Amino acid sequence: MSTLARFALNQITTPTWSLAETIEACARHGVGGLGVWRDKVEAYGVDRAARHLREAGRFAACLCTGAWLDATEPAALRRQMAENAALLEMAATVGAPCLVMVVGGLPAGCKDIGGHRERIADLLCELAPTARALGVRLGIEPLHPMYAAERCCISTLEQANDLCERIGDAAAIVADVYHCWWDPHFERELRRAGPSRIVTFHYCDWRVPTRNLRDRAMPGDGVIDLARIRGWLDDMGYTGPFELELFSELDWWQRDPEETLKIGIERCTPLVS
Amino acid sequence: MSTLARFALNQITTPTWSLAETIEACARHGVGGLGVWRDKVEAYGVDRAARHLREAGRFAACLCTGAWLDATEPAALRRQMAENAALLEMAATVGAPCLVMVVGGLPAGCKDIGGHRERIADLLCELAPTARALGVRLGIEPLHPMYAAERCCISTLEQANDLCERIGDAAAIVADVYHCWWDPHFERELRRAGPSRIVTFHYCDWRVPTRNLRDRAMPGDGVIDLARIRGWLDDMGYTGPFELELFSELDWWQRDPEETLKIGIERCTPLVS
Repeated sequence: MSTLARFALNQITTPTWSLAETIEACARHGVGGLGVWRDKVEAYGVDRAARHLREAGRFAACLCTGAWLDATEPAALRRQMAENAALLEMAATVGAPCLVMVVGGLPAGCKDIGGHRERIADLLCELAPTARALGVRLGIEPLHPMYAAERCCISTLEQANDLCERIGDAAAIVADVYHCWWDPHFERELRRAGPSRIVTFHYCDWRVPTRNLRDRAMPGDGVIDLARIRGWLDDMGYTGPFELELFSELDWWQRDPEETLKIGIERCTPLVS
Repeated sequence: MSTLARFALNQITTPTWSLAETIEACARHGVGGLGVWRDKVEAYGVDRAARHLREAGRFAACLCTGAWLDATEPAALRRQMAENAALLEMAATVGAPCLVMVVGGLPAGCKDIGGHRERIADLLCELAPTARALGVRLGIEPLHPMYAAERCCISTLEQANDLCERIGDAAAIVADVYHCWWDPHFERELRRAGPSRIVTFHYCDWRVPTRNLRDRAMPGDGVIDLARIRGWLDDMGYTGPFELELFSELDWWQRDPEETLKIGIERCTPLVS
C-alpha cells in the first residue's frame, strides 16, 4: 500500500480549486482520497463527480456537510430533513461512506440547549433508515464547544458516542483533532467508539495565538500532539482515512493551493503512513 | 436582606474605573460586593483597598487572578508559585474568600496537555497549605475549552471537581456560565460541587454571533438560560455571591461604566435576588 493511500485532502483546505482540480491534484501527488463538499459536487454534477473519482482511482472519505437542523417552523424543518435525505443520496452516488452531520446551533430564540440536543437526537434517529437503505452513514461530528451556539450543538465525542448508541450503526463518528484535542476524555471516547464507529479522522493543528474561529494551523505548527493521537488510533485498530482539513482565513486559504497541498503532504506523511 | 446583597460587580466589567471608583459605585447602587483585580488593588494599595471596602460595607467576592503556572524553567516556576503565595496573602488582606486560579495554558513548546494538567494538580496541591493557613481558598476556574492552549488548561467543571477532591477543602470552584454553558454535564457537576465548594458564581451571556474571544454579552442578550441555571443553584442550596463579569472589547468596555453598571443591575436583579 502506498504511503498516502489512507490520506485524503478535505476540499475546504484548498477552497479555490474545483472538484476536478482537486481530484487531479490528489492523483498527481498520490493522495488516496478526498473529503468532498456538496457545493463543489453540485457545481461539477454528481454523476460526473462520481465518474471522475472512479476513473482517477481516488476514494471519497466523506461528503461535507449535512443541512443544519435548526429550523423553528415545522415546514422549514421538514425541508431541512428532506435536504439531508437528498444529501445522503448524493453521498451514496459519489461513493462517500458518510455524510458529515454538522447539525447546526440553537434555533432562533432558543435557550434550551439540553432540550434542543434531545430534538437533534430524535431527528437523527428519523434519518437513520434512509441512511441505512443507501448504505451511507450519518457521520456525527462533534464540533468545538465554541461553535455550540452557531454551528453544532454536539460538542464532545462522548455525546457523539451516546448518539451513536441511540441511533444504531447507521450512525458513525467523524473525529477531528481541532474540535477534541482539549477534551480530557478524548482518548477514552475514541477507544469507546472503536475502529468500526470512526468513519474518518481529521487532522490540522491548534494555532497559538488563535486569532479567530477559522484559524486552524498546519499539522506541526500548533500544540496538538498528533503523533500520540495517531498512536491511540493504531492501538485501537483504526484503519480508515486521515483527512487534512484546514479552515484558515488568514493563512492557508490565501496561499496557492498547490503549495498548501505540498506542505500538507510533507507534514502529514508520518501521520498517515 | 437587600435585593442586591449577594450581587457583585467584577471589576473587569468596568475596567476604566479605579478600585475606589468601583467601590463607590457599588455603594451608591446598593450592589453588595466586588470581584477585585490585583492590578487595581496594587494601584490603590492593599491596606487602603481593604479599609475602603470595609468602610463602604462592600464584600470582596474574589481576587482576580492568580499567576499562570506555565513556566518551563524551574526558577521561573518557583517565582510563579511565590507570586501566587503573595496573591493569596493579598486576598486575605482584602477579605476575599478566594484567589481565582486561572492557571495558564500550555508551557512554550509543550504538546502534552494531559501531562501538564497533572503538573498543575501537583502545583495546586503544593499551594494548598499556604491557602489554608491564610483562610483563603484556591478558586479553581475552569475556562472555556477555546482558552485551553493560551489561558487555562482546566476546561471543565468535572476537572475542577476532580482537582478539588485531590487538593482538599483549601480548593473551591469559581463557576462561570460563559465557560460552562455548553457542557452537557454542567448541571451534574454543579450539583456534585455543591454549595460548599462553589465560592462565587459568574454571570454574563454568550453572544450570537461571537466575534472574538472577548465578546461576552450582557445577561439576557445571549443564548444562555440563566434563569434555569439560577434554579439549579437555589435547588442545591447555594447562598454565595453572583458576579457580573463581562469581557467585552467591542461593546461594554467602550461604554460609560455607569451605564454598564445600571444596565447590569437591571438585567441581573431577577437573577441575584
